[in-house]
Amino acid sequence: MPFVNENFLKLNKNYLFAEVANRVRKYVEKNPQARVIKLGIGDVTEPLPVCVISELKAAVDDMSRRETFQGYPPYEGYEFLRKAISEFDFKRRGIDIEPDEIYISTGAKEDTANIQELFSIHSKIAILDPVYPVYLDSNVMAGRTGNFVDGIYNDVEYLPCTIENNFSPYLPKKKVDLIYLCFPNNPTGQVLTKDELKMWVDYAIDNDAIILFDAAYEAFVQQPGIPRSIFEIEGAKKVAIEFRSLSKTAGFTGTRCAYTIIPKELYIKDKDGNKYSVGDLWLRRQSTKFNGVAYIIQKGAAAVFTEKGQEEVKKLISYYLENAKIIREGIEALGLKYTGGINSPYIWFKVPDGFTSWQFFDYLLEKFQIVSTPGVGFGKSGEGYIRLSAFGKREDIIEAVERLKNFK
Amino acid sequence: MPFVNENFLKLNKNYLFAEVANRVRKYVEKNPQARVIKLGIGDVTEPLPVCVISELKAAVDDMSRRETFQGYPPYEGYEFLRKAISEFDFKRRGIDIEPDEIYISTGAKEDTANIQELFSIHSKIAILDPVYPVYLDSNVMAGRTGNFVDGIYNDVEYLPCTIENNFSPYLPKKKVDLIYLCFPNNPTGQVLTKDELKMWVDYAIDNDAIILFDAAYEAFVQQPGIPRSIFEIEGAKKVAIEFRSLSKTAGFTGTRCAYTIIPKELYIKDKDGNKYSVGDLWLRRQSTKFNGVAYIIQKGAAAVFTEKGQEEVKKLISYYLENAKIIREGIEALGLKYTGGINSPYIWFKVPDGFTSWQFFDYLLEKFQIVSTPGVGFGKSGEGYIRLSAFGKREDIIEAVERLKNFK
Repeated sequence: MPFVNENFLKLNKNYLFAEVANRVRKYVEKNPQARVIKLGIGDVTEPLPVCVISELKAAVDDMSRRETFQGYPPYEGYEFLRKAISEFDFKRRGIDIEPDEIYISTGAKEDTANIQELFSIHSKIAILDPVYPVYLDSNVMAGRTGNFVDGIYNDVEYLPCTIENNFSPYLPKKKVDLIYLCFPNNPTGQVLTKDELKMWVDYAIDNDAIILFDAAYEAFVQQPGIPRSIFEIEGAKKVAIEFRSLSKTAGFTGTRCAYTIIPKELYIKDKDGNKYSVGDLWLRRQSTKFNGVAYIIQKGAAAVFTEKGQEEVKKLISYYLENAKIIREGIEALGLKYTGGINSPYIWFKVPDGFTSWQFFDYLLEKFQIVSTPGVGFGKSGEGYIRLSAFGKREDIIEAVERLKNFK
Repeated sequence: MPFVNENFLKLNKNYLFAEVANRVRKYVEKNPQARVIKLGIGDVTEPLPVCVISELKAAVDDMSRRETFQGYPPYEGYEFLRKAISEFDFKRRGIDIEPDEIYISTGAKEDTANIQELFSIHSKIAILDPVYPVYLDSNVMAGRTGNFVDGIYNDVEYLPCTIENNFSPYLPKKKVDLIYLCFPNNPTGQVLTKDELKMWVDYAIDNDAIILFDAAYEAFVQQPGIPRSIFEIEGAKKVAIEFRSLSKTAGFTGTRCAYTIIPKELYIKDKDGNKYSVGDLWLRRQSTKFNGVAYIIQKGAAAVFTEKGQEEVKKLISYYLENAKIIREGIEALGLKYTGGINSPYIWFKVPDGFTSWQFFDYLLEKFQIVSTPGVGFGKSGEGYIRLSAFGKREDIIEAVERLKNFK
């Protein structure tokens, strides 16, 4: 028999959201009458935009007729979609990203998990702590992190984000090759100003590092001076890859379409100093292990990048941000310290003294029938915090905050 | 800067189908008036089944309404689809495969490329030669194959399939851990009888190997005694994983839905002898690096596994098999030796003396404006062969065979 990939055995036993789902299932089995409100996983609840629905239908019709039927999609995505993204996400905002620097995929999760394949197994990685588990786990599975001892992997440079630094990480102390950043942040909801993000780009330039920038929540940015793309920062095209998604923007969590930006200027080297285009390496990876996103889905996605689509998306985002405001105010009224919920759908708060993250998760579930996400699930520095998600139906959000008024 | 993953540099410079596309593009640029007929890449041309179209539309409607809207799909796929597959692909054929042994994905390409992640980097692999490039390339990129010297990778056990053994491979000479098999075969179109496949299952049982069985073309099997699933063979559930797809069956190349069967009996071990369920490892891989297949697509896919869907699929398959018959007879009339085209959409023939695969590819393109796939692109033993695909419009197939009558 082949042996198991021993790196898999270094993973935390359960994927965070699987464990949350598991505890909720058990609770519901025991309490079938309970009306559980789910503010745990960041999953959208509002229907797809009307213009997306109508393009999806038209695309289904295309697939029903010989003349318009579509076979294998291009590995990098259809040009109609890449052009529309280039125009609406970048050129209209004064950022020069061309369609051939855009790669369509089924999810930012997939892309942030797969991107590490392009780099040497000896690359040193830095991640925020707390962090979206995928960046870390994909590197654990690849064998880049060392062993898990006392809640941390030996070969990973953790960048703590806590109340002490206002959830804005300090620069790495050790030399690293790959830096995973995510702003607006999941899970803390914190953002970086343009100046703060520039500090990271400058650091990467000075220290020969690449920034893997997850911008999945960029559509939630409302305040001026907060970048929605790392490519708003001068010099970023030489040192950054950006991941963007329609999941949280246009309600695509169940429809599956995302895109990754790899600038043509981005190169890495082999040990002899030969240069390789990162975009070419990614296309090779994708053309070998991926067969593109369904035509129907890409047609629907393209509708987001129209005047009408942008308007509808704005309304969706406003809806969730109003939810966030209601949660924020509820948490504030309880006297708990929190961040996020302004340019982000996530509210990250400190649990009352005497609770761990998982204890307070269980407490919220059992006492108030509210599903949250325990902060420690995102990393050691997340211990003592809870993430609440503003993705939910308004009436549920209001009801959850009502229930919390009975706390203590 | 991080260094490049040096294993990527061991890949053949071009992905086969990208190189084919490249040569065709260049030819068309020079000869814009040419009516090129594409029998190269195995891409379907007939519309999706009517019942699939109607379910896709209903699913789009679901996504337009709050009450029926769907967020993140389950990592392993919706139960409605896994149940339907279990019933139609297995139980009705007397094979006991349960819904929880079925994992839905966006493609058999993705799954056959990703499955190797579960196994130790030191696992020895055996592949057919010629072979679908994905099995090999995904292992090259993982670092499991050694260097490429004289057209072969040092650490790979190749199993040649040539006229000499009637394209039916001999058992491996060296001890291997993972054996990639694909029957009906891509590219040769050859099939194995039940007895022949049993020989492989017995070999795997006796030699502690796992068979990775690609059944993407099972729907084309017409003759009795040819298995459509490896699980028709006794004992296979202890030693095999099977990959199945709707791409060639129901015209899903542009719609993207496939499924992988990992029996509950399948275990691997770590070096201390502890056992791990391969299905559990796969679910962990998928839940960490993948977010499931779009709800709309899974609803459409489920329509294939109904009485109506099965009838429509049968008609699609008959259409392509009639194409295959026309090509077969055309090749036979030219006096060229071939295999396939009976239980398979592929016809694999020996090029005339004096040509290499690529030379004959260019000759077919330039002289007859026919796109083929050069056999050597599938491996060293494919040199001197060409693959023709029966996926195409009937009128194009007839026209291509007409053109070939002018050969010599």
